[in-house]
Amino acid sequence: MQKITIRTRARQELVDITGEIEEVIRKTGFKNGLVNIFTPHTTAAVIVNENYDPSVARDILNTLEKIVPSSGTYTHLEGNAHAHIKSSIIGSSRLIPVQDGKLQLGTWQGVFFCEFDGPRTRQVWISFLKEE
Amino acid sequence: MQKITIRTRARQELVDITGEIEEVIRKTGFKNGLVNIFTPHTTAAVIVNENYDPSVARDILNTLEKIVPSSGTYTHLEGNAHAHIKSSIIGSSRLIPVQDGKLQLGTWQGVFFCEFDGPRTRQVWISFLKEE
Amino acid sequence: MQKITIRTRARQELVDITGEIEEVIRKTGFKNGLVNIFTPHTTAAVIVNENYDPSVARDILNTLEKIVPSSGTYTHLEGNAHAHIKSSIIGSSRLIPVQDGKLQLGTWQGVFFCEFDGPRTRQVWISFLKEE
Repeated sequence: MQKITIRTRARQELVDITGEIEEVIRKTGFKNGLVNIFTPHTTAAVIVNENYDPSVARDILNTLEKIVPSSGTYTHLEGNAHAHIKSSIIGSSRLIPVQDGKLQLGTWQGVFFCEFDGPRTRQVWISFLKEE
Repeated sequence: MQKITIRTRARQELVDITGEIEEVIRKTGFKNGLVNIFTPHTTAAVIVNENYDPSVARDILNTLEKIVPSSGTYTHLEGNAHAHIKSSIIGSSRLIPVQDGKLQLGTWQGVFFCEFDGPRTRQVWISFLKEE
Repeated sequence: MQKITIRTRARQELVDITGEIEEVIRKTGFKNGLVNIFTPHTTAAVIVNENYDPSVARDILNTLEKIVPSSGTYTHLEGNAHAHIKSSIIGSSRLIPVQDGKLQLGTWQGVFFCEFDGPRTRQVWISFLKEE
């Protein structure tokens, strides 16, 4: 397992980490199988979606904020209940195929780290899975 | 990794692909482990849920449409922002156990390809993972 | 694959199953790789999130209920359409790294079984994946 560190800069933000993951795969020499992109934080998540037009990431964040408002009323008193809920809805990991040392993503797909309670220093853990 | 092609017929639709995946597993001779069902599209997703009563798939689509309306206001200008958001919420893959060459699903579970911006020709990629 | 049985006690409930999963890992002697925590039910799901302050689990359930009300109007006539939809949104499994026989979770992360149509006797299936 490899770990990368991400510094987020806003309260809520989608950070494109596709390049960092590709770099980790290159350095480890991993060729074929799958990588699990996992974040150990309860107010963050991982998404695979379009990273070409930045308006897509903005719309994802804005809509999650409409569905689960940070200003809503919650019983958890730390002010970040919305972030825990967004993290639970999106999920803490994504599993992606790798072939010949390359992430097998669709033309428009990239990997985003989702910060819902930043800015903070965050971790992403990358596991390498064997394919049959 | 094996690839299957799906032709969707509606703007938004859940297509039951359980049979196609079982067929791929049969053809490859894969016996034990897990399969990752991954779609490389940013306006599509994969769900595991009830495929017995078709009203369940309808309710899933209708409710997602209420939560993330296709007629909403978004910054992404291609008219399919809602589809990117639905794809991000549901997720681009599902991981399912296989034993003796059979998908290990619950009695009522099936695998659905979720089309949120069709009709289109789509791909689903099936990876075969080793179990310890 | 190992199976554990869970008895839920409420209509909707998040049950912390972190200890049960750690116990299964200990008994099998599995040391390094990943575990897939999968539920074969169409009205249940698996979440990784904070299990320290119980108010987080309560907020997750309450917010899901606001987004997908159990009292809403659906075409599925069994009265549990909301549970199928919540299950689809959250997802039927989570994939978690294991090192030296221990779940690699963040400080505040635990694993929850999500009951959306209880109380019932439920199953969780744990698969052990090889890492490269």
